[in-house]
Order: sequence, then C-alpha cells, then structure tokens
Amino acid sequence: MEIKYSSCSSRTSSSEIRELLRYTRMKGVISFAGGLPDSSLFPTGQIARITKDVMEEKGLLALQYGPTPGEPEFVESLIHHMHNFDEVATSDQILVTSSSQQGLDLLSLALLDPGDEIVMELPSYLGAIQAFGRSGARMTGIQLGAAGMPSGELEELLRRKKDNGTPVKFIYVIPDFQNPSGVVMSLENRMRLLDIAARYDTLVVEDSPYREIRFTGTTMPSLWTLANGEGVIQLKTFSKMLFPGMRLGWIVAAKEIITKLALMKQSVDLCTPTFNQLIIARYINEGLMKATIERAVELYRQKSACMIAALEKNMPPYVRFTRPEGGMFLWVTLPEGADTKEMVEEAAANGVVYVTGRPFHCNGEGSNNMRLNYSYPSTEQIETGIARLAVTIRNYCEAKGLNHQNEIAGLAVQN
Amino acid sequence: MEIKYSSCSSRTSSSEIRELLRYTRMKGVISFAGGLPDSSLFPTGQIARITKDVMEEKGLLALQYGPTPGEPEFVESLIHHMHNFDEVATSDQILVTSSSQQGLDLLSLALLDPGDEIVMELPSYLGAIQAFGRSGARMTGIQLGAAGMPSGELEELLRRKKDNGTPVKFIYVIPDFQNPSGVVMSLENRMRLLDIAARYDTLVVEDSPYREIRFTGTTMPSLWTLANGEGVIQLKTFSKMLFPGMRLGWIVAAKEIITKLALMKQSVDLCTPTFNQLIIARYINEGLMKATIERAVELYRQKSACMIAALEKNMPPYVRFTRPEGGMFLWVTLPEGADTKEMVEEAAANGVVYVTGRPFHCNGEGSNNMRLNYSYPSTEQIETGIARLAVTIRNYCEAKGLNHQNEIAGLAVQN
Repeated sequence: MEIKYSSCSSRTSSSEIRELLRYTRMKGVISFAGGLPDSSLFPTGQIARITKDVMEEKGLLALQYGPTPGEPEFVESLIHHMHNFDEVATSDQILVTSSSQQGLDLLSLALLDPGDEIVMELPSYLGAIQAFGRSGARMTGIQLGAAGMPSGELEELLRRKKDNGTPVKFIYVIPDFQNPSGVVMSLENRMRLLDIAARYDTLVVEDSPYREIRFTGTTMPSLWTLANGEGVIQLKTFSKMLFPGMRLGWIVAAKEIITKLALMKQSVDLCTPTFNQLIIARYINEGLMKATIERAVELYRQKSACMIAALEKNMPPYVRFTRPEGGMFLWVTLPEGADTKEMVEEAAANGVVYVTGRPFHCNGEGSNNMRLNYSYPSTEQIETGIARLAVTIRNYCEAKGLNHQNEIAGLAVQN
Repeated sequence: MEIKYSSCSSRTSSSEIRELLRYTRMKGVISFAGGLPDSSLFPTGQIARITKDVMEEKGLLALQYGPTPGEPEFVESLIHHMHNFDEVATSDQILVTSSSQQGLDLLSLALLDPGDEIVMELPSYLGAIQAFGRSGARMTGIQLGAAGMPSGELEELLRRKKDNGTPVKFIYVIPDFQNPSGVVMSLENRMRLLDIAARYDTLVVEDSPYREIRFTGTTMPSLWTLANGEGVIQLKTFSKMLFPGMRLGWIVAAKEIITKLALMKQSVDLCTPTFNQLIIARYINEGLMKATIERAVELYRQKSACMIAALEKNMPPYVRFTRPEGGMFLWVTLPEGADTKEMVEEAAANGVVYVTGRPFHCNGEGSNNMRLNYSYPSTEQIETGIARLAVTIRNYCEAKGLNHQNEIAGLAVQN
C-alpha cells in the first residue's frame, strides 16, 4: 500500500542531534553532540526515597489522570522555583508541559498557519526550527551578535514584513546562553526587542532552558520579567538544570494564551504524568532543586573552562569559538568554505562527534560551524576529544587548502 | 495585543470529558464521566520498590534522554506483554508514545491534511474526533451496530468517496469494548473490514485500549493480528489496564510507518520519559502486569454487573443501555427528542455526572445519549449514582413529555 503522508510530515526532516544521540551510547566515541546534562549530578537516591514518600502519601493521586494545565501542587512548586530565580507568575499563567519541546509543539499548533512569518536568531535551536517549520510557517533569521539579536535589523525586518502585508507573528529568541552559541542577550537589546515587538504588535517567545546555569557575571532579568508578562511567552524545562528523563517543562504566559495552549494540549496528550509532577514538586519543595543547580553550575563552570583551555591549546589559529558565561554549549567557526558535515565521519572514526552548524540555521547557512557540548563529557574526555577534533579539523582544512588565518565574520569574534 | 491563533486552533474545542473531570475531585458528586480506572488497583508499594531498584541499578540511564522510538528494554517488555495476549510484533514495529492520545496526535500530524477523508464509528472516542478534527480532515461516521461497524455501509461509503475523487485515508475503529458504547466488533465484521480496506487501499487505525479487559466471552483476534500487520496501525496504552498517571502507550505498525511517526514524535516531545519506561518494563518483566490485569478484569466484571442491575432496577422502560462484555463504559439511549446536555446541571445538583452523547459523534448527533463509566466509582456509588440519575432522567423526560415507551433505533436494542 502506498501511503500518502501529510504536508506537515513532508516538511519534517530528522533532527541531526537525535540521529547523533546514538553515538552517546557507543563505546570509545567522545560525544560533544547532545545537549545532555552530566549524569553524575543525577540524584538517584533522593528520587527513589521521594518516590516512596509520594507513593505512600498520595500514590492513588499520582497514578491517576490529572488536570491538563498541570497538577496544582507541581504548579505551586514551579512558582516557588521561579521565585528563587527572581521570576514571578501566578498559577493561571502556567501550563505544565511534557518537556519544553512540547512547548514548541503547542506553539506551532496554536499559532502557526502555512505562510505565517516568524523571526529567529541565526543560529537558533534546531528543535524549534523543526517544530515551527513543520507548520509551513516562513522563518527569517537575523545574524546573532555578541550581545544577542541586533535590534536595528530586527526593527527593519518587522517594518518590511508589515509593509508587505505579512506581519510577523512572533519573534523566537533564547536570551540566556543561547543554544547553540552560548551568547547572552544584553539588557539593552532585551529592552529594545520588547519595545519593538510591542510597537509592531508581535509576540515574543522566550525559550529559557539555561538561565539558571550561570557560572560567571550577573544574571539578567528575563524578557518575561522585563515585559511584566505582556506579550511574552516563556518556555521552561528541568531537562537541563536537573535531568531530562522525566520530561518536565512548563510555559509561562498570559492567562488567555495559557487557556488556548491547554486546549491544544488536550488533543496532544491529555496531561503530563502526574507521577513525575508530584515527585519533582517534592524535590523542589524540599529545597533540593536549588542545591542541585548550584552543583551543576560549579561543575559546568569547570568543564567549560576545561574545554576553552583545550581549544586554545589544540586548535589552529583559523578556528574561532565563543566563551559562554553559562549554559551547556559553545559555538565553533571554521574558515569560510569549510563544511563541517563533510568532516563528521572522519571525526567519528577519530573517536569524537559534534553537531554540524547547518541544522541550526533556518536559512540553510552555517556549514562552517559546529556546536560543542561540554556538560556531558568528563574533563578527561573533553581534553582527549578536543585534541582529536583539532587533528580532524587540521587534516580537513589542510586537504581543502583552508588552513590559513581567515577573516571570520559574526559570532566567532566575540570576547 | 490581539493574538491571531492558527486555523488548527480554531478547529479545536474543549473536550467535555476533560471539563467534567473536575467533578471527579468534588466531594459528594458521583462521577460516571471520566474513563478512570479504579485507584484501588494501583500498585503503589510495588512502584515504590521498583523505582528504588531502577534507581540503584540504572538510575543514570533512567534520568537521561532516551531514543525517540522508545527505550529498548521497555520495547522488549511490550513485545512480551503483547505475546501474553496473543499478539506479535517486532521491535521495529513499535513506537513508544506518551499515552495513546499522543498516538492519535501523531497520526493527525503525519497523515492528515485539510479536506482529507476519514471514516469512523458513530459514536466514537471523542479524543480521536478532537485530534483528527484539528487537522481539518473530514470525518464521516457509520452508525455502529451490535456487531460493530456494518461492512455493507462501509464499502458503499468507500466506493462513493473514491468515485468522488476523495478516497478515504483511513478507517478509525475501536474493535474491542468500544468507547463509548462497549460494543465488540464480530470476527466476521473484522474480516470484512480488512478485506474492504485492502481493496480500497485504505489504512485501518485500530484503537485498542480495552482489549485486555474482558469479563466474559472469548477474546477476538485483533485487526493487527488478522491482517498480519498489513495496512493496520494499532494504538495501545497502559492507562486503562494498569494506570494512567505515567502516560505510557505505544503504536504498532509496519516499520516504514513507525519511522515516519517517530520523526513526527521528535518534533513533538523528543522522547517519552525514560524513567517511566524503565519502571513499567520491570513491572511487566516481573509478571506483575498480568496479575494486575486479572484483578482489574475481576473488579470491573463485578462493577459492570452492579451498574446493569442498578439500571434495570431504577431506569424507566423508555431508557435503553448496552451490556458490555469488557472495557469500562456502557452507553445509554433516551427517547428521541431528549438532550442529555440539558440535564447535566440538574444531574450534578442531584450528585451525579456523566458524559453527554454529542461529543462522541463526528456528525453532531447523539444528543439523546450518554456514556456511563463503571470502572472508577465503587459499587455503593454505582447503586446510589444510578438511582440519582434515574430520578434526574424521569423528571427531565416527564417535563418534556418524553416519558413513553419509544421505538429506539440503533445500538440501544442490542443484547
């Protein structure tokens, strides 16, 4: 039988990250590819003990269906968690999601029609490109600077789209330790972005998985906070600051938007596991979340420093990279003309993997980029892996005649 | 800011069941509305103990991201579970889902474009109507008989649609203890349906949440089994036979279809919680699943008998109902002209709730029907609740002048 799939399906291609994830379980290969937190932080003993407590005290509730917007006890603990990081929301401004990828999925379902216009950073999170692209929306990218999305270009773009009769539906940004670049949007750019969005009647989607993971410098107020909740939809997840195996995230937005997204969630999965929500609610309420995040911050500070030192030691001068103040990733730029995809197999054969740059670009650029993750590998693996990667890059660039000091545009020159 | 939501969103209305779920947590109101299993079956002690074992033995794996198609250990346990109920699948024919509602969501995304034609039973599961309707597909219903979807009408419909140049994309059926009616499709109708579907090159979606819960009579082979996997997509879940609080389900289909659905799942939530998958894998592998299902079958046998006895004792003669051999629901038919939606508030005031018939009909009919759930309430609650419901119905029908013995068409006359 010849099956005719949907147009939505024909617009969906596989995520390179997901495909590369199998390497993370292969022996001998050091993976800088995934966005995985360090498993040594996982509080397995605490989770076993808390699960026992939850089963004893409210087991029947935990194993039953729950309300679509989220289990009230978990929602309260989310408010408490946000409060710990200087953020404020009320319970009707929160929708619990099964990971923040589901947040992207719900936004795609609730907001996007084929031909709709959205704006995002270049580069940006490939899972968002996948979820938004599925809908047939048109994505326009703005090259990221060292202080985030440049507001001049943003305003120019919004004006042009509006004049063309295709106003922009939303601006998607990752202001803190951007994935994949590690860049932080400056306070000035945050204020300007909100001002421009308000003037052009455009929603802002703030994807914020890494904000809590800052090693150095001062935490910036979120767009949600700066806008007093007006016109901003914030996506949050515990996958990065805690662990991803429970798939718990949440959306923060105005009550009316939450109501609409909750309606879409009904058709998507009815509700997020009550079991998981009650376990993590208790984890937060016992103060364990804050302690875990502090340990993660300390560990990732060391690992990022280790990776930067290894890059400085091993990489040829024509390779540039960002130096993040938090998060899990840094972004590497090779000379123009290089294609990191051509190097993947050679790298894997040398025992190291990364993610290529193109899937992070809604416009198909980024072939001379790669994203490196430092949260998952050990410091020993980082040192060995970066040495292997440097050999791979040198060989590739020499063979292609690219081994000269290049003028490298954009992100690579920051810091 | 005026937000313009998507056309997909404008086609989505709230599920009446979800709205009614809040009654299930209200004191004093007896709910026949939800599709909730009996919480007294929930193995809270075992889950606590198994979680501890999983955390000790493979905690780091359990709290990490997993592969999109499912955790291999869980997939193996699903094959083992299916084998216990005379079903066969290979690991590449299985996609783990976050509940079977997600199965419906993925089918909607992967297969349906606006204007596509699908066929389903009248009545059918309202969550499917919601997920499929969202896409803009056109749903045509065929009135269910006592032996399931009548094959003559199905063939006539498929022929007509094909002749019109709009061939039917898939036929959605719930062959075992259909939701909401409790009806089982006969072996003869199963064979005919598969024959017709094959001749018209139409996929069959077999939603099968209740098949394992049979109190009496002989279990029928599934469509998946009868078709040897050709052209059938089967949706499964543990929400009904075990408990729903972990949101675990799976799809069984040909490898090519599974690959396509897994790709859509990437954009939807990356993966189902590894934590939950490893806990339930162990629950199955220790033989506990089979024992739990046996207890559920025994309990629901008693409860369904109790509800039927209470209906026979209390209901006026102009009210008819089905007598299911398994599952969780029975279907009540009031005289033509009654609208069970008009009675909801009165019923709640009398301390009982049900789900109205219309949301189960893709054609907007069914106003004189209601679905009753007997798995969740206790036998005492069933007796009291049915007595309350009978009073409500009598009052309503008398006030409307409908309190006469009616010729009632369709389902109500079965058994």
